[in-house]
Amino acid sequence: MSKLLQMDFPFSGPFGDEMAESLRELALSINDEPGFMWKIWTENRAQNSAGGIYVFETEEDARTYLDKHRARLEELGISGIRAHIFDINPTLSRLNHAPL
Amino acid sequence: MSKLLQMDFPFSGPFGDEMAESLRELALSINDEPGFMWKIWTENRAQNSAGGIYVFETEEDARTYLDKHRARLEELGISGIRAHIFDINPTLSRLNHAPL
Repeated sequence: MSKLLQMDFPFSGPFGDEMAESLRELALSINDEPGFMWKIWTENRAQNSAGGIYVFETEEDARTYLDKHRARLEELGISGIRAHIFDINPTLSRLNHAPL
Repeated sequence: MSKLLQMDFPFSGPFGDEMAESLRELALSINDEPGFMWKIWTENRAQNSAGGIYVFETEEDARTYLDKHRARLEELGISGIRAHIFDINPTLSRLNHAPL
């Protein structure tokens, strides 16, 4: 069953359109990660943070990507990364119109 | 523009089908919250945690719901609640097939 990966971390920008421009190649590469289904890109300019909500086909896929992305962020000097992998409760999510 | 609310907290169950049964009425009530668009219900039995990824129409809607839900959880004796409200980067999210 698919797994949800929730990540966020301190981030000093760029945000918005500039972020979209500078991270376009990274986004395209994520489409090729094993088991990747989708990602919502999150950002909070006021709180200097950013992250993502991902859905992967399996826990192993989510964990493999998390390890890779954590290493990439740490190489960029980012620390304080928060990451959690969750099951999705399908019955309750369907009741609340979740796009799954 | 719509806002994403990410919440998670220590939770000792029930999980899975039992969770779906016991929280069905709560889920239905969430559909009536102002500005609510959808929720993915998250749970992690191994780590005793649960939460949700919500999308609301506005920041005010997200914040109003967060305050209400936080008070409800605290009344149930739940502490250690982590909650963050984010903007969604639409360009990058579209590139990654996000269901928005």
